[in-house]
Amino acid sequence: MPLGKRADCKNAKYAGIWPSRCANVCDGIQEAFQVGFDFVAVSLNHEKLGTGVPGPHTCIRSDLDLQSQSWTSQVVGIASAASGPAGGEDCMGAGGHECGGESRRSELSAVLEKEFGWASYLGLQAVILPSVASQSEEEMPLVAQAVSQAMMSKTFLQVWVQVPVALDRGEHGRNYDKWHCIRALSNYHQQVRLALVLGEDLPEPSDLDVWTGEPVRSAIVPVSAFKFNAKGYPTLPKGHQNFLRRLFRMGVQVIVRDDALGHRLGADAIKSAQDPENNPLRVYWEYLSFLFRGMEQPTENEAAELDYRDYLQSPLQPLQDHLESATYEVFERDQTKYTTYEEAVYRALLDKFPGGASGGRTPVLMVVGAGRGPLVLASLRASKRAKVGIKVYAVEKNPNAYITLLHLHQKEKWGDTVTIVHQDMRHWNTTERADIMVSELLGSFGDNELSPECLDGAQRFLAEDGVSIPQSYTSYLAPISTSKLHEEIRNLKELKLMETPYVVKLFAHTLLAENQEVFRFDHPNRAEVVDNERFRTLHFERPAGSGPGILHGFAGYFESVLYKDVLLSIRPETHTPNMFSWFPIFFPLARPVYLGCADDGGGRISVHVWRRSARHKVWYEYALASPEVHPLVNPEGRSYAAEL
Amino acid sequence: MPLGKRADCKNAKYAGIWPSRCANVCDGIQEAFQVGFDFVAVSLNHEKLGTGVPGPHTCIRSDLDLQSQSWTSQVVGIASAASGPAGGEDCMGAGGHECGGESRRSELSAVLEKEFGWASYLGLQAVILPSVASQSEEEMPLVAQAVSQAMMSKTFLQVWVQVPVALDRGEHGRNYDKWHCIRALSNYHQQVRLALVLGEDLPEPSDLDVWTGEPVRSAIVPVSAFKFNAKGYPTLPKGHQNFLRRLFRMGVQVIVRDDALGHRLGADAIKSAQDPENNPLRVYWEYLSFLFRGMEQPTENEAAELDYRDYLQSPLQPLQDHLESATYEVFERDQTKYTTYEEAVYRALLDKFPGGASGGRTPVLMVVGAGRGPLVLASLRASKRAKVGIKVYAVEKNPNAYITLLHLHQKEKWGDTVTIVHQDMRHWNTTERADIMVSELLGSFGDNELSPECLDGAQRFLAEDGVSIPQSYTSYLAPISTSKLHEEIRNLKELKLMETPYVVKLFAHTLLAENQEVFRFDHPNRAEVVDNERFRTLHFERPAGSGPGILHGFAGYFESVLYKDVLLSIRPETHTPNMFSWFPIFFPLARPVYLGCADDGGGRISVHVWRRSARHKVWYEYALASPEVHPLVNPEGRSYAAEL
Repeated sequence: MPLGKRADCKNAKYAGIWPSRCANVCDGIQEAFQVGFDFVAVSLNHEKLGTGVPGPHTCIRSDLDLQSQSWTSQVVGIASAASGPAGGEDCMGAGGHECGGESRRSELSAVLEKEFGWASYLGLQAVILPSVASQSEEEMPLVAQAVSQAMMSKTFLQVWVQVPVALDRGEHGRNYDKWHCIRALSNYHQQVRLALVLGEDLPEPSDLDVWTGEPVRSAIVPVSAFKFNAKGYPTLPKGHQNFLRRLFRMGVQVIVRDDALGHRLGADAIKSAQDPENNPLRVYWEYLSFLFRGMEQPTENEAAELDYRDYLQSPLQPLQDHLESATYEVFERDQTKYTTYEEAVYRALLDKFPGGASGGRTPVLMVVGAGRGPLVLASLRASKRAKVGIKVYAVEKNPNAYITLLHLHQKEKWGDTVTIVHQDMRHWNTTERADIMVSELLGSFGDNELSPECLDGAQRFLAEDGVSIPQSYTSYLAPISTSKLHEEIRNLKELKLMETPYVVKLFAHTLLAENQEVFRFDHPNRAEVVDNERFRTLHFERPAGSGPGILHGFAGYFESVLYKDVLLSIRPETHTPNMFSWFPIFFPLARPVYLGCADDGGGRISVHVWRRSARHKVWYEYALASPEVHPLVNPEGRSYAAEL
Repeated sequence: MPLGKRADCKNAKYAGIWPSRCANVCDGIQEAFQVGFDFVAVSLNHEKLGTGVPGPHTCIRSDLDLQSQSWTSQVVGIASAASGPAGGEDCMGAGGHECGGESRRSELSAVLEKEFGWASYLGLQAVILPSVASQSEEEMPLVAQAVSQAMMSKTFLQVWVQVPVALDRGEHGRNYDKWHCIRALSNYHQQVRLALVLGEDLPEPSDLDVWTGEPVRSAIVPVSAFKFNAKGYPTLPKGHQNFLRRLFRMGVQVIVRDDALGHRLGADAIKSAQDPENNPLRVYWEYLSFLFRGMEQPTENEAAELDYRDYLQSPLQPLQDHLESATYEVFERDQTKYTTYEEAVYRALLDKFPGGASGGRTPVLMVVGAGRGPLVLASLRASKRAKVGIKVYAVEKNPNAYITLLHLHQKEKWGDTVTIVHQDMRHWNTTERADIMVSELLGSFGDNELSPECLDGAQRFLAEDGVSIPQSYTSYLAPISTSKLHEEIRNLKELKLMETPYVVKLFAHTLLAENQEVFRFDHPNRAEVVDNERFRTLHFERPAGSGPGILHGFAGYFESVLYKDVLLSIRPETHTPNMFSWFPIFFPLARPVYLGCADDGGGRISVHVWRRSARHKVWYEYALASPEVHPLVNPEGRSYAAEL
């Protein structure tokens, strides 16, 4: 039964059990159900498969044991080498590299091929591979080849590679490299997944960050990792609890592996467990459920953003396309954003017109790109608060939003206070001059919706001492690891879609280094020749001691000065609280890039970034410079450009 | 509210109303809801759009009238030219071609562009275009260009082109050609859809078949098409009823157009309508609901196949791939198929061993490709009925199904009666000779799963006077029109996937001519040199009087003689009743081909078909020869081949 009720943790609510013994699969499932678990992990080592792997053999007789639906939802298979005598803990203890003989290596592929075939025949969702810690580096290519072969033909079968979360950095590096060998050789296939094995001790939380960007599908917690409290009930150390909760949020399913049951279970726990349910495993399921139910509930904003997590959206092109009513509707709900704009206008009015309107002239405020009017409303609120009467021009090129503005004008009885102008701000002819020009043309990367070009065009009718709100904006980049997004982008297949930046609520990702400033724009721009092209090379340094990892692209943010110290930001360090109008932007790399240990030369990530323009369009180009030199992404804007 | 409860008619249960007048859209929707309808069609002609189209203007003031969700689900827009004074019925009456002046033609594109933009801004699901009957041939390219342009940028907006279902063949031809102009110029875009307009009279059912293969999205029934019964209630003629039910089954949504309300409504109907609901439109909705609810329920087989309608499946390759447990499970449910096999074995046993086993020798029956054993079970049943004891060999190459057979052997206590052989039938060495060799290796196109090659390999151990069940099988082809499948296949984008045959439960399609025999195979094949390659040119003749249409590819079927007059068939004319193991196969054409009227040279469709083979594979090639010569599809099996 589910561990608890949550909408945000996908399948994490269904936990599994890897029993120490199982006489037949049907009873095994029944027992698991009684205790609370939703699926069982059982060996695939069937005598009649002819693999030659010695017993114990599987508790599955044939596919007739269960209905096909049950095979798919209630059973995952365990590949033989996981429990066979040639692999396992003994072997790891003996030194890793020396495991097994030549004959085992030559037979490994054959065994996996037969067991993958058998699992696929049964309709299982996944096969759990042996722990990489129990296998040598030399065996990895053989495992990877078998996995790759299975991925070619077994349409639905997933492979979960067991990787221990190691305490020791050297050991972590070796495990990570073995995992990397399997997934890289099988070309980052989206059915190749991680089964993290949590041992008795865990490394520091920062050393666990690496897994957030990786495709973790399940977490195996051996019974031996549990401690027992005064009453004899099993509990996990604080570090385990926190990490499991992080994993739950990522939708990771937990599997309890019964490796030492009964050895240390306290008398009370046994009593409690055996009384109603008659199975000591019940208390482990109850503990997981307790952990799961104890997680903080998502905030209102988080709940609203659930469906957008790691969901790729093409950036808006409000200049080229006319936005739709529903898009305006969503953005207008962001009260924080408009309150911040109101504050900026309020401060500017007070600064420029300290005693109210000067000399009888009514101050002129222009909203350029008025949309359906939210900035007009915010400006009028600011005017009222500042007690400075203003005349407002609302300039909007979208012929449909123009109809809404006319309707609103009537409804709000704006009369002469507000004039609606159906014009592109770059081409409007007026003799009026604005004291304050307000706009909301920023994209997730600041200038990416062409705010610089639009405001340069509009500053003709800004008074000489006029103020632009915003006054400036700056973009930021950070290198990230995100298997999830990499898979999404690869699935798009076309080059054009694989070198486009995407707006995305980054969720399952790891920040590899601190973000750095990229491009900055100031308004008004009084330079003789305005040049909005830019070029920067950024050098990121991963924190000292970082282990190996993988780079999939760069996250982009912006920070904007609306007016003096009134800021608007989506940069993580300075994010305006409770503002949800912008998700970060993601600049993908076509190929994942392996990063070695930071202390071993793998700490630097460098990237070149251009903002380029031609007569009718503006675009970004970028190229990884370190640790590898990659070809230019999006040269000449071949795949993506914002149209002027 | 829905017209009725049906799982098989998609959105057809939601009907719409196109009111004669509407003061404001919000009230219009409320009225429609009260009467029973789920959405309204309203004009898009907004004064402030600046199209210059004269009134009456739309009842929509701005997007603020409704929530964005309501715009999407409860309103469809009507493009101006549909109701403007320059178009409409008057114009059609005046002769079609002469409609409007030069200025109207030059402004048509601009009006459509603005109204499409406005509809998209509001978030409407669809815009209904003017009837093609009200527009001239010369205007069609302008409409098509505007539609095509909208499809480039308006991601979700559909365009529903009004096409009257004409009684007169000449008129039908002209309407069809205008519709074809729009959809062909907009490159068969999947958001370009038909809104069929049903007039007072309808043509013969056979003349309505053409629409089943077309992308019909809605059906507009003007109030003037209704007749009134003795009590004054509106009803539709029998032909309309039948056609509407066909359309309902295709998921088509009906829109009642209020063009003449109250003119002829009977007193009782008015009373009934006005009593509880106070709106005379209620009786029309009730009539639609009556029609909808009166449809025959799908049979059990039809219900089970719902999800497979027009769903493309790659043909199985049981020789190359090992089938999965769940696949066997599905096929084994087809009792009709195995009863038919049982009958064939029974007849063969009686024929060959009329007095029971002869001379003390137990007759030998081999099941080649035994899977999980259903033919073994059927053969044993036949043996019991015929009172002829047999020795059975079950030969199966799939190592996983082999495990199932061993399990079954034990469970069924087969003992010495059945021997399980884990071998590929082409390579098994045995001195035993089969009196009867039973196999189920047929695909939807008969030989496409390589039954000929497998049985040729297995006939080594068929006794000289042995019988093969099946004795022979023949494939059949028919040209079909199916916009739905064409769109599905185009969406696959890759050439490889666009010239592959697919197994598919053909649903929304039109058969353009009778099927013809293609390839035949007999077993055993005692020819000195066995040649399983084939070539045929097929000439199909569309029925005399057929109007214009469109060809998307060919449907394939098979017919098999299991033993003497015991047949197994999926050819429509001879389909074995209640058998569901095989859907037809579909051979697609990359480009749709326009067909002129049959009486005007557009009656013949010719195609060349090859069955070809190389050392390790077998594949089909085909090419349209008439009415156009197309390049060869799948030359050298570059995109699809069955592996030996």
